[in-house]
Amino acid sequence: MYLRDLISKLGGEAVGEVSAPLTGVGTLERATPTQISFLANPKYRRSLDATGAGAVIISASQREATAKPRIVVDNPYAYFARVAQLFAPQAAHAAGVHPTASVSPTATISATASIAEFVVVGRNCTIGDKVRLGPGTVLGDDVVIGSASELMARVVVYAGCQIGERAVIHAGVVIGADGFGFANDKGAWVKIPQIGRVVIGDDCEVGANTTIDRGAIEDTVLGNDVKLDNQVQVGHNCRIGDHTIVAGCTGIAGSTIIGQRVMIGGAVSITGHLSICDDAVLSANAFVTKSVTQPGMYSSGLPLMPHRDWLKNAAQLRHLDALADTLKLIAPNIKNKGDPS
Amino acid sequence: MYLRDLISKLGGEAVGEVSAPLTGVGTLERATPTQISFLANPKYRRSLDATGAGAVIISASQREATAKPRIVVDNPYAYFARVAQLFAPQAAHAAGVHPTASVSPTATISATASIAEFVVVGRNCTIGDKVRLGPGTVLGDDVVIGSASELMARVVVYAGCQIGERAVIHAGVVIGADGFGFANDKGAWVKIPQIGRVVIGDDCEVGANTTIDRGAIEDTVLGNDVKLDNQVQVGHNCRIGDHTIVAGCTGIAGSTIIGQRVMIGGAVSITGHLSICDDAVLSANAFVTKSVTQPGMYSSGLPLMPHRDWLKNAAQLRHLDALADTLKLIAPNIKNKGDPS
Amino acid sequence: MYLRDLISKLGGEAVGEVSAPLTGVGTLERATPTQISFLANPKYRRSLDATGAGAVIISASQREATAKPRIVVDNPYAYFARVAQLFAPQAAHAAGVHPTASVSPTATISATASIAEFVVVGRNCTIGDKVRLGPGTVLGDDVVIGSASELMARVVVYAGCQIGERAVIHAGVVIGADGFGFANDKGAWVKIPQIGRVVIGDDCEVGANTTIDRGAIEDTVLGNDVKLDNQVQVGHNCRIGDHTIVAGCTGIAGSTIIGQRVMIGGAVSITGHLSICDDAVLSANAFVTKSVTQPGMYSSGLPLMPHRDWLKNAAQLRHLDALADTLKLIAPNIKNKGDPS
Repeated sequence: MYLRDLISKLGGEAVGEVSAPLTGVGTLERATPTQISFLANPKYRRSLDATGAGAVIISASQREATAKPRIVVDNPYAYFARVAQLFAPQAAHAAGVHPTASVSPTATISATASIAEFVVVGRNCTIGDKVRLGPGTVLGDDVVIGSASELMARVVVYAGCQIGERAVIHAGVVIGADGFGFANDKGAWVKIPQIGRVVIGDDCEVGANTTIDRGAIEDTVLGNDVKLDNQVQVGHNCRIGDHTIVAGCTGIAGSTIIGQRVMIGGAVSITGHLSICDDAVLSANAFVTKSVTQPGMYSSGLPLMPHRDWLKNAAQLRHLDALADTLKLIAPNIKNKGDPS
Repeated sequence: MYLRDLISKLGGEAVGEVSAPLTGVGTLERATPTQISFLANPKYRRSLDATGAGAVIISASQREATAKPRIVVDNPYAYFARVAQLFAPQAAHAAGVHPTASVSPTATISATASIAEFVVVGRNCTIGDKVRLGPGTVLGDDVVIGSASELMARVVVYAGCQIGERAVIHAGVVIGADGFGFANDKGAWVKIPQIGRVVIGDDCEVGANTTIDRGAIEDTVLGNDVKLDNQVQVGHNCRIGDHTIVAGCTGIAGSTIIGQRVMIGGAVSITGHLSICDDAVLSANAFVTKSVTQPGMYSSGLPLMPHRDWLKNAAQLRHLDALADTLKLIAPNIKNKGDPS
Repeated sequence: MYLRDLISKLGGEAVGEVSAPLTGVGTLERATPTQISFLANPKYRRSLDATGAGAVIISASQREATAKPRIVVDNPYAYFARVAQLFAPQAAHAAGVHPTASVSPTATISATASIAEFVVVGRNCTIGDKVRLGPGTVLGDDVVIGSASELMARVVVYAGCQIGERAVIHAGVVIGADGFGFANDKGAWVKIPQIGRVVIGDDCEVGANTTIDRGAIEDTVLGNDVKLDNQVQVGHNCRIGDHTIVAGCTGIAGSTIIGQRVMIGGAVSITGHLSICDDAVLSANAFVTKSVTQPGMYSSGLPLMPHRDWLKNAAQLRHLDALADTLKLIAPNIKNKGDPS
């Protein structure tokens, strides 16, 4: 593939041309002369100078930053992603149902779907065109999987849940397990049947071992183009808007509503029944106990320190309120900037 | 189902009667005239006024808060849970062993148990009456599953572990994997064989992808009516008392003993070798490094703030102890309320 | 087994001898006369006095702390681990491929490997001597598993990944799922194909439901003797050095490089693109946003407190910076120890 081939498929402007065809993508640090790399962030300019890449994808503002053959585009990182997709090997799965799979006779399976070894498909499921159900996947009754979606391996989708088109669901994911709902009756727990579903839109990706609980009465809903990383937990009746992205190990308690284009870092914990507005950014490890109503970046978390320092500082945290009171006693007339009024 | 049918099964007092039979449950906000809803918390009174539900479950103190047909009970939420159970569809699993399952000839399987596709049952297992082993479940040797328990799909129970009666174990759960035990010998790690078991009482529920490690020498033990949400981690040799409930993403390190009726929020981390007393409540995201010896609610965690504020405040956290020292220097005679004596 | 048998296999000095052969190991608190226990930490001396164990493993400094038959060694805990290994039952898995397994004809399987029920082995995989692939395990194409490694049950290894010798990989582990890489293009996410692999060295252990993502372009790499507990998440392109140990529920974001002999507690969150130096110790619940360049122990996390206290103290945390400013205004000439210069 030459630069001229790439721009004919993906657009952009080629400056110069590679002498030998490109065979793949690489990082600036390690790319070889038959690989193409990219510069998205000017702070990696030094790596650009030293790169062994045969060509580079670069923004207009960096157009003259290299003499290498290059493609000039508005968004080098997104362009690089599309180039990498062109070069990435596509797993070719033969259409059809593997003889070891157990498929209900009442399920509707597209002739172009690929059902792997030891898959179980329940009653009245609908499996769209070019869907891939990887080995060991289990679908309960009445599950709908939209066309071109791939469930990688050992995914479980409980009865009644729906996944849209072009989803990528990684191994170990559990969609539609019961939400955590119990009523206390004189000390013992009475289970509240979880009769809602999980409904997932188009173009979503769900990382390995992530869990998304079914709704208690109404549904748990993910919009379109929602990306969840590994080991994320989504509680019952959550709703997550289009284009929202959630990094690994984050937990979202039940009935929390998350807007569109929200970016949630790793290991965030969000309590239940909150609203997080469109375009909010929650940084890694944030602990969210109140709704977020204004776009912008929010954080929490105690920063790392040497253990000895932490012991001393953490001890003071236990009476920070008293310390503030003392300060007010000493300086009653000095307005503390932090005072609410 | 009419109100008179419900009270004949579940008790309570009917006030009025629905004109058409009820077909299910719903939330106050979305219930239809053939659904029954509930009011547990007076702060949702406004929803009660607007509800489209055909009937409502309500406490004696709210008896006159609506003119709708209603059932008056002490605990509307628990009553609602039982009504929902009556209406919830029961998955009917045919008794017997699916022909694709691989069951050891030395296992004892009740004739009323249902063993699904691709299940593996090891040597000398004992599977009680009306047990359901969902697709892809793997039981090691010598596992005991009490009657009426359901392992939903792809559950793994390692050799020797026991689960009591009426358990609900969700997909992806791993019970009895090795605890994390290694001795350091001149820089290299020597594995300590984990020879204890996991023993789980009756009426427990374990959420999707939760892990409960086997004991190192003695057993890891869950009592009766213990409820664990998704992605909880229970370390080796923990003991969890009856009626204790643990929300999602919480990790409990090894050898920690948790009492009865403890309520543990989501994303809590509890270090090892602690005791948490009966009736303690640990709120979401709490970080527990010392034993809790008195009932009551405990918390920790830095609250969320705009990222700019967090940067400034977090910087001060690094020398909070020094700040307290300065304050003492200025005001040596003012007793700081936070001082230990 | 007598003490003389143990020291002939494992070294150490026997003082006295048991009257009846030992049958296993036990804790000081519960061991019986045919079990051997150990004292590693002098603070458990009291348990030593009361133990019912038939013999004890003890350090030279505690040599005379008991009159029991004993083995005196430098490192009682590591010695105990090896004794426990001698007594631990070894699961005996018959060599060969179970008739229900689905193995590609192009895979190379050692004649001494044991492939269990419902295992899937992809094209061109290489499975070493005495490897055990437990029930329901799925290997993509081109996977290499080194000799004597055991994948317990329902492990998924994606295409191209490699695991060294003598690994223990617990149930539910997912190795080689796609890293979390998306480029934003006018609000929508474009997937960056994840074409690196996961390469794991020798003697590693990976706990239940842990996930290790494949590299974006280059590989994610674990060295030798790396031990990961349950529900750990390792992001794409991380590198973890030899003898490093990571406790449960810890998340490591992408491209972070962790040195050798690092000890990471449970529920730690480490952001991406950091370096953690050799011999660093990160205590439980630590939140790591900057590289650690000096060995030693580091901590963070707000300690647990009664909920009422937390409400008041947490409120002050929101304007800690303002509080520090006020203090400076009052006492401009007092040097705050925490000041950077």
